[in-house]
Amino acid sequence: MTDVTPVLSRADQNLGSSLDRLFELLRIKSISTDPAYKAECHTAAEWLVAYLKTLGFEASVRDTPGHPMVVAHHSGASADAPHVLFYGHYDVQPVDPIELWDNDPFEPAIKDMGNGRKILTGRGTADDKGQLMTFVEACRAYKEVNSALPCRITILFEGEEESGSPSLKPFLEANATELKADYALVCDTGMWDRETPAIAAALRGLVGEEVVVTAADRDLHSGLFGGAAANPIHVLTTALAGLHDETGRITLENFYEGVEETPANIKASWEKLGQSAEDLLGQVGLSVPSGEKGRSVLELTWARPTAEVNGIWGGYTGEGFKTVIAAKASAKVSFRLVGKQDPAKIRETFRNYVRSKVPADCSVEFHAHGASPAIHLAYDSPVITKAKNALSDEWPKPAVVIGMGGSIPIVGDFQRMLGMESLLVGFGLADDRIHSPNEKYELASYHKGIRSWVRILDALAA
Amino acid sequence: MTDVTPVLSRADQNLGSSLDRLFELLRIKSISTDPAYKAECHTAAEWLVAYLKTLGFEASVRDTPGHPMVVAHHSGASADAPHVLFYGHYDVQPVDPIELWDNDPFEPAIKDMGNGRKILTGRGTADDKGQLMTFVEACRAYKEVNSALPCRITILFEGEEESGSPSLKPFLEANATELKADYALVCDTGMWDRETPAIAAALRGLVGEEVVVTAADRDLHSGLFGGAAANPIHVLTTALAGLHDETGRITLENFYEGVEETPANIKASWEKLGQSAEDLLGQVGLSVPSGEKGRSVLELTWARPTAEVNGIWGGYTGEGFKTVIAAKASAKVSFRLVGKQDPAKIRETFRNYVRSKVPADCSVEFHAHGASPAIHLAYDSPVITKAKNALSDEWPKPAVVIGMGGSIPIVGDFQRMLGMESLLVGFGLADDRIHSPNEKYELASYHKGIRSWVRILDALAA
Repeated sequence: MTDVTPVLSRADQNLGSSLDRLFELLRIKSISTDPAYKAECHTAAEWLVAYLKTLGFEASVRDTPGHPMVVAHHSGASADAPHVLFYGHYDVQPVDPIELWDNDPFEPAIKDMGNGRKILTGRGTADDKGQLMTFVEACRAYKEVNSALPCRITILFEGEEESGSPSLKPFLEANATELKADYALVCDTGMWDRETPAIAAALRGLVGEEVVVTAADRDLHSGLFGGAAANPIHVLTTALAGLHDETGRITLENFYEGVEETPANIKASWEKLGQSAEDLLGQVGLSVPSGEKGRSVLELTWARPTAEVNGIWGGYTGEGFKTVIAAKASAKVSFRLVGKQDPAKIRETFRNYVRSKVPADCSVEFHAHGASPAIHLAYDSPVITKAKNALSDEWPKPAVVIGMGGSIPIVGDFQRMLGMESLLVGFGLADDRIHSPNEKYELASYHKGIRSWVRILDALAA
Repeated sequence: MTDVTPVLSRADQNLGSSLDRLFELLRIKSISTDPAYKAECHTAAEWLVAYLKTLGFEASVRDTPGHPMVVAHHSGASADAPHVLFYGHYDVQPVDPIELWDNDPFEPAIKDMGNGRKILTGRGTADDKGQLMTFVEACRAYKEVNSALPCRITILFEGEEESGSPSLKPFLEANATELKADYALVCDTGMWDRETPAIAAALRGLVGEEVVVTAADRDLHSGLFGGAAANPIHVLTTALAGLHDETGRITLENFYEGVEETPANIKASWEKLGQSAEDLLGQVGLSVPSGEKGRSVLELTWARPTAEVNGIWGGYTGEGFKTVIAAKASAKVSFRLVGKQDPAKIRETFRNYVRSKVPADCSVEFHAHGASPAIHLAYDSPVITKAKNALSDEWPKPAVVIGMGGSIPIVGDFQRMLGMESLLVGFGLADDRIHSPNEKYELASYHKGIRSWVRILDALAA
């Protein structure tokens, strides 16, 4: 390792302009899931390419059938420097309900919270524009001080992460040689808490399904037909309500096939983190763990699978009342997977289960929305150890190696398609309200995030 | 009873001018729900008053905070003639989508369908201007032949039936003495089929409820919180799915209190109508009765209570996918009531049931949307028997006494507020497309409807 003090100082001096650049990116409304923002997604990709070029990257916008990728390359300081692929995504979640935002989600701002704490507000500050820019700004500090980067770096920024990444696998396949590195760095995760950085070594997988139940061929008057005609909302709610038993377990046949119990030493290290149900749930106004009984909330969110209804709609939903029996009812359902659960099998089992609940004169359609298996990395690999030490040098408390409830399908894709493990480091906090109104990112996350990458790149190069 | 032949002949001779008068009324665009047509509603009321005056009624437009009422009085042929209140409504439904109409909805016409069948086309022909004019024209025929009416008649025409009748109860209350009669005649229902007239003697009641379940104080990321945080859609779907057991019965405690089995002879008369599940459900693309097992579709829709979810919504319902755990989930639920079921008790039982399904850290709110008890008239009352015989004399097949799945709140209001039962007779057909484009009324419904009222008035006076 080298003396990184000058690079860290440069990162400190740069902070004002680093924020300016982040805010430029945040102002671009790159909502990938809504076709109305297609042009803005392209603009975000172009902005990133232009900026990376100023840092000496060989960068390009790479078109896909969906939103474009950004790919950039930079050589390392020496020929034997490790080659890392850095991944982030420039697309963001929709902003509805817009009326719950305190500020325009696309007009980012710095808000002083008192006691020296400042936050950056706006859609994408934490997920994931703020995070990916921590890495870019770390590279910039290196370049300005050393005219070189300690590692050979390939950057891949995606624009469809919030809409199921339909173009990602074909793109990785078509560009495998160009993108293959020694390992990937992924910055789309969080800290353990405000003072404790975290490396995520276990990620849940995800299966997304949309279900549409159709009964009559038109909306019916509930006076004329009520009691005799099938109500698709009843069919749907009955199927969905049957997904869990009274102990919180998921009832689908063979659902727990491939789910392994967490090793005792890992569970013990999680227990040391001292997170109670009240700690996790209290921050969002809840208190009672809702999942499988007899397991800690960390286990429930990091190491156990789930079935969640993410959206439901059918019939009359406006003001007042309409005594209608709807023709259709729909739901979006997702499963978080762990261990070796097979996404394709889970999808099929779910579909068969729902079909079994649909009366003979009704019908059901399914639409697949993404599938990825769970990811498990070795808790004691050299890369994790180096990153752990580098992070521990930067933050008040030592870094911890944790599980994660979310899904980062790219990690599985890197593993399967490019034979490459990922190091997952990020600086988000649990209260960042990603995917919700009033998303924010701590100024400390941004600033010390940049400094963290300076240290990690140095450690990886050693 | 008297010899009504001269009056019937006069009604036949009058048919041309009876149609002219109906068409004048149909041309007035009295859409009550759209404020743009406020003046036209007033015009319709004025037209009716002017016409009733020419028939010797003491008639007046009676203003309300909404659209006006028409009230008219005429003495009977003798002091001991029964006093009846005739009810109809002069307001009509909106005409959207206008592009689906074959003709201008407010330029009524007679259309020859071949084989001697003619129909009257236009908004309001069946619901309810055509129907109310059958009664008015019956009165006219009587007056022209006898210079008298066999019953003492009070007429009440409402202009807000299609927009929730907000002024009706206050008007009945304020004018109870003036409006109270021996019984009411309501002409807003249908025939059993083209040849078989019907008297509706049972109407289901209705309780409407909106339920809002709140879990976390914001939308959550299902990766971070899934498995630990309560999902309000799960809470709601579980509660709603639990409303019915596997036999289709409603599970709410004491729900069936006040529900009586339909007398065997009534059930037998319904079975004779020969309506199979396929007849009712086949027309809307269904085939399997969904309610309580072992009961005919007529029994299910006329004589059994229901619980229906009329609308449900929560979480992400747009394009694509969003792995959110919603903060709130909502549903609109209605109960059709029969017999002596108590709307207030049903509402409270439902609320208590839902509350019992809500976890300690979630909350639920309810919003009431109307309540009316079921209406049951004695199947063998003298008034029904007289009307049944009169109708049987006019139509090819004998009249049937039926139930109705829908609610006609006015009937309950007459019962509760004026202590007066209603006789429900109407000449609409199931294919009249009321509330839809291309509304029509059979010319036979109009002509024989007029003749039917001639016969009924005579029978009631006897």
